Amino acid sequence: MTDVGIVMGSDSDWPVMKAAAEALAEFGVAFEADVVSAHRMPDEMIAYGAEAAGRGLKVIIAGAGGAAHLPGMLASVTPLPVIGVPVPLKYLDGMDSLLSIVQMPAGVPVATVAIGGARNAGLLAVRILAAADEELRARMEAFQVTLKEQAHAKGARLRAEAADLGA
Amino acid sequence: MTDVGIVMGSDSDWPVMKAAAEALAEFGVAFEADVVSAHRMPDEMIAYGAEAAGRGLKVIIAGAGGAAHLPGMLASVTPLPVIGVPVPLKYLDGMDSLLSIVQMPAGVPVATVAIGGARNAGLLAVRILAAADEELRARMEAFQVTLKEQAHAKGARLRAEAADLGA
Amino acid sequence: MTDVGIVMGSDSDWPVMKAAAEALAEFGVAFEADVVSAHRMPDEMIAYGAEAAGRGLKVIIAGAGGAAHLPGMLASVTPLPVIGVPVPLKYLDGMDSLLSIVQMPAGVPVATVAIGGARNAGLLAVRILAAADEELRARMEAFQVTLKEQAHAKGARLRAEAADLGA
Amino acid sequence: MTDVGIVMGSDSDWPVMKAAAEALAEFGVAFEADVVSAHRMPDEMIAYGAEAAGRGLKVIIAGAGGAAHLPGMLASVTPLPVIGVPVPLKYLDGMDSLLSIVQMPAGVPVATVAIGGARNAGLLAVRILAAADEELRARMEAFQVTLKEQAHAKGARLRAEAADLGA
Amino acid sequence: MTDVGIVMGSDSDWPVMKAAAEALAEFGVAFEADVVSAHRMPDEMIAYGAEAAGRGLKVIIAGAGGAAHLPGMLASVTPLPVIGVPVPLKYLDGMDSLLSIVQMPAGVPVATVAIGGARNAGLLAVRILAAADEELRARMEAFQVTLKEQAHAKGARLRAEAADLGA
Amino acid sequence: MTDVGIVMGSDSDWPVMKAAAEALAEFGVAFEADVVSAHRMPDEMIAYGAEAAGRGLKVIIAGAGGAAHLPGMLASVTPLPVIGVPVPLKYLDGMDSLLSIVQMPAGVPVATVAIGGARNAGLLAVRILAAADEELRARMEAFQVTLKEQAHAKGARLRAEAADLGA
Amino acid sequence: MTDVGIVMGSDSDWPVMKAAAEALAEFGVAFEADVVSAHRMPDEMIAYGAEAAGRGLKVIIAGAGGAAHLPGMLASVTPLPVIGVPVPLKYLDGMDSLLSIVQMPAGVPVATVAIGGARNAGLLAVRILAAADEELRARMEAFQVTLKEQAHAKGARLRAEAADLGA
Amino acid sequence: MTDVGIVMGSDSDWPVMKAAAEALAEFGVAFEADVVSAHRMPDEMIAYGAEAAGRGLKVIIAGAGGAAHLPGMLASVTPLPVIGVPVPLKYLDGMDSLLSIVQMPAGVPVATVAIGGARNAGLLAVRILAAADEELRARMEAFQVTLKEQAHAKGARLRAEAADLGA
Repeated sequence: MTDVGIVMGSDSDWPVMKAAAEALAEFGVAFEADVVSAHRMPDEMIAYGAEAAGRGLKVIIAGAGGAAHLPGMLASVTPLPVIGVPVPLKYLDGMDSLLSIVQMPAGVPVATVAIGGARNAGLLAVRILAAADEELRARMEAFQVTLKEQAHAKGARLRAEAADLGA
Repeated sequence: MTDVGIVMGSDSDWPVMKAAAEALAEFGVAFEADVVSAHRMPDEMIAYGAEAAGRGLKVIIAGAGGAAHLPGMLASVTPLPVIGVPVPLKYLDGMDSLLSIVQMPAGVPVATVAIGGARNAGLLAVRILAAADEELRARMEAFQVTLKEQAHAKGARLRAEAADLGA
Repeated sequence: MTDVGIVMGSDSDWPVMKAAAEALAEFGVAFEADVVSAHRMPDEMIAYGAEAAGRGLKVIIAGAGGAAHLPGMLASVTPLPVIGVPVPLKYLDGMDSLLSIVQMPAGVPVATVAIGGARNAGLLAVRILAAADEELRARMEAFQVTLKEQAHAKGARLRAEAADLGA
Repeated sequence: MTDVGIVMGSDSDWPVMKAAAEALAEFGVAFEADVVSAHRMPDEMIAYGAEAAGRGLKVIIAGAGGAAHLPGMLASVTPLPVIGVPVPLKYLDGMDSLLSIVQMPAGVPVATVAIGGARNAGLLAVRILAAADEELRARMEAFQVTLKEQAHAKGARLRAEAADLGA
Repeated sequence: MTDVGIVMGSDSDWPVMKAAAEALAEFGVAFEADVVSAHRMPDEMIAYGAEAAGRGLKVIIAGAGGAAHLPGMLASVTPLPVIGVPVPLKYLDGMDSLLSIVQMPAGVPVATVAIGGARNAGLLAVRILAAADEELRARMEAFQVTLKEQAHAKGARLRAEAADLGA
Repeated sequence: MTDVGIVMGSDSDWPVMKAAAEALAEFGVAFEADVVSAHRMPDEMIAYGAEAAGRGLKVIIAGAGGAAHLPGMLASVTPLPVIGVPVPLKYLDGMDSLLSIVQMPAGVPVATVAIGGARNAGLLAVRILAAADEELRARMEAFQVTLKEQAHAKGARLRAEAADLGA
Repeated sequence: MTDVGIVMGSDSDWPVMKAAAEALAEFGVAFEADVVSAHRMPDEMIAYGAEAAGRGLKVIIAGAGGAAHLPGMLASVTPLPVIGVPVPLKYLDGMDSLLSIVQMPAGVPVATVAIGGARNAGLLAVRILAAADEELRARMEAFQVTLKEQAHAKGARLRAEAADLGA
Repeated sequence: MTDVGIVMGSDSDWPVMKAAAEALAEFGVAFEADVVSAHRMPDEMIAYGAEAAGRGLKVIIAGAGGAAHLPGMLASVTPLPVIGVPVPLKYLDGMDSLLSIVQMPAGVPVATVAIGGARNAGLLAVRILAAADEELRARMEAFQVTLKEQAHAKGARLRAEAADLGA
């Protein structure tokens, strides 16, 4: 059963958004990915959101850039948690994408992650699913231990490099 | 027959948006005004846009603040020109509203005016209608003459005031 | 059993943050609220995050302003989903708070809502809990219907007001 | 008969602005293109605007960068709708161009599109002309169907790619 | 003979701009002040700039807000130095005004001062005139001595106040 | 013996800057406070910086707003650590002050604190002095314990208030 | 006799600043160019400014980047008009440089040009000198005619190119 | 004995941060360098800060990017002065890093340097140590003389280059 739907306004967002898919795959979470454009296929977009919960999805991850309306529009037609990924476009470094996604009016929240932060969108979906899944939470805790170990390993390499400067 | 639809996400936008209505009234352009919230009534919002041309509307003016999705979503479901008014909210001085409205992707334009610039939205609608209405264009030209005369009058008053400073 | 912990860096954040508590109360979700300052009581802050899951919390809502480190630091010591609320301070309209919360590095997500958007933080927590709670999801769907009805009522009032301008 | 005038401050803006011309050509709308610099040939710029309506133009598209005065100055001497395209220059990613174009004072509107959004300027001109041209509106509706089909096709390709990641 | 022309887009700019007049009056420099709106009276604006040098003006000070086109347009039709004052409007704290004035293209400079910095515009005009007027330069040097003395006096008062805190 | 010099461009900065003096007084650190304007008394400003170390000062705290040059200029003529306080002025919320102080070129550092953050400037000076003063460091550690206790007390009050909402 | 001094904080600013020198050379205005660093040689910087008028300079052009203090500091020690050029550095696109230069306090103006706008700094110096030099003003007027002719020529080329698209 | 600890969130910050190490090495100040991630190893991070003073460190330099929490968190658990280096990441040019570091709440200061300004972090550490070390201060003064001489040498080269343009 598919737990997470990853959608984006165009396949040009995929190089950014696939990091969300990869994170979910690492945790063994079943997902689907699709182009669902708020501006080019609004009816299908509304339908996607309206049917998501009924189809068994538990979380939606939506990426969009510029006047990024997809995450907020989906959130308005589903009771599921929607995670928004601000995709940076050619100009403004994603600041327009960020504000278009995060500044939602009271009543309709979007869980926004960093500009280009699709990997964190995937990890946030895992945390949300893990809120009701002991085993998945254990995997998240193990993942956090791994992060720590990787940071320790980086520290060891850095100390060696810094020694060349007299440290 | 109603030519222009003025819509906004909430009646709290009306103090800003009514300036659009007043401008249309000054030019004798028939309009309607309504709350059409992209986030709180998405289906009705889509329907409003999809039916606008069929109902005889020629221009839509849409005001919204924050993650302002209304103008762009309407533009995605109508072939009519959509004018977007960035409504400033409590924080960020309307910069979020502006970017959320103006930075639309290629394919779906929104004619954006200044932050809080609802009067200009009304005047832009008049210009658009006047493109196919000689008489309305003449009224716009007369309006522009009036603007000039008002500026001249302001200049006279200013010269008098400045004289007190030695000008 | 308490499902949601609402924490903030100072009681001066409470006027903003209590909207999260009110939203949870509306949905009958059990919560606790406390001052947990990343900068003034770092050890207790780390302990709060590290013990949250074990104590049965399912979601943490953390509000902070300026160099807002609380949401991200809590996210680093818990596997639970953490929702960050950028609290606007005296200068910069909360832009510093927003960037300090949302721009988390890959590995440690914070679900960020709008500047001052504590009510949406509460509603997002409800959506997260509802992902594994059919009854709560039904209440969220009912809430969304209410939002729509309120918007309709606002529209009726607005149409009446606009009629005075000639609409 | 030429319906749309596309003007810009320098031929260095042409690589951005020609997307407006291409959009108009796709819709069979007759246009002209020229360099009309507000700062280097102000008298000719004023004349261009003042004579535009009399020559039969129905819409003006004006692109400019930095302290971008061309769209607003043309709007001040013509009753026609003027569409402004913020052209991004070497620094500031077009934010200066955007603000210089969109923040017009009450009385003189400019229909502003996205930074670098010349294609949308062309499409907006088509929508404006279509307000009084049933046949052109039908073409815009057909274009919107094409946008949807292209998005569907992108979705199919994306689903295939995502399958490699386990979707 | 009038040396400096102070112009602005509207008399609503006068509360800011009169500080320029006051500075000129302090130095005994003859000036005139008027409303010359780029957007509401473009022909007169062009004429004002084109005739300024011939009328004997030596410097133009132009204040404008929002999409502030007046200083740059005047600079395009006069060989005189034009000083631009970004007038802050209701939103954006004058950042739009500043960028619209300062970011002029190569070929047509505007000497821009601080947001709301009309007094400095007047003082800059004095410095420019003093470049060819020994007596005026001496007055500017005396003014700079006065600035220093005022700062010293403020220091004395501050030291007294600080003493109460233990300094 | 005076350890810290607190200087500012004008006595209008004192309402912000006196929080630095109060912090130093709390720690029993001897300080002086004065107006030293980079722009109005540049020679005295240079002299103040050049003589500071010789007079026995160990740290300089400099507050300035807008084009805030005082901290950086002092840092260029003294080997002492200089702490810069960005003072917010009427427009831009201190962002200009912050960038003018913090963005120093390589070679001449300024230790910058938050916009309006004069109290932290005082506390940073204490930390710097405490680097060579065991007793002062102990007082800083005691101060940090007090911060924690105050936060705890705030938490107690907040928990009581939140209980009214159902927490 | 040298009329204009062009100074900058480092020779790394020269690739930007030499456009000022080239503009002056085109107009036959005598200039000098030098490195005068506010932060690395403050005493010499103060001396440069203090002696400029006595040495016969009539205008100073100062370029600087980041925390750009050179133009404002020179303006504080000379009665001459000082033109500031915000030099863009590696980050922030010159916005820090612009604000550090333009936001001078009342009393000490800097005539600021666009980010990277050194050519306009040169042209502004010519306009300032021409305020008292009929012959130089005539050359500026001729230059403005040339600008217009170049723009016309660009228009001719553009019309030809646009014809390929159907214009 | 090690006086300065240089830490950063990831070894990817080292290309920026090693300039701090190099500056310390030039002054003969003993330092250590390590990866101490606030988000990936929060317990070790807290321990690093809490033990720093006891281990004999006198200053901590911490670099971080994006939601940059490391400097502020370290400052909350040590009485030592903490210098924060905003490391620029892929988007936003380090503005998020700067605000996350500098906007600390009253009580816990971070001495912030320029975006990417690690060399100045090293030099600031030297100044802090020199506050209690006459010999080190003499070296800082000698360094400042060297800066001046280098600037003079750059001036000589620039004057030669400018001569080719007619200076």
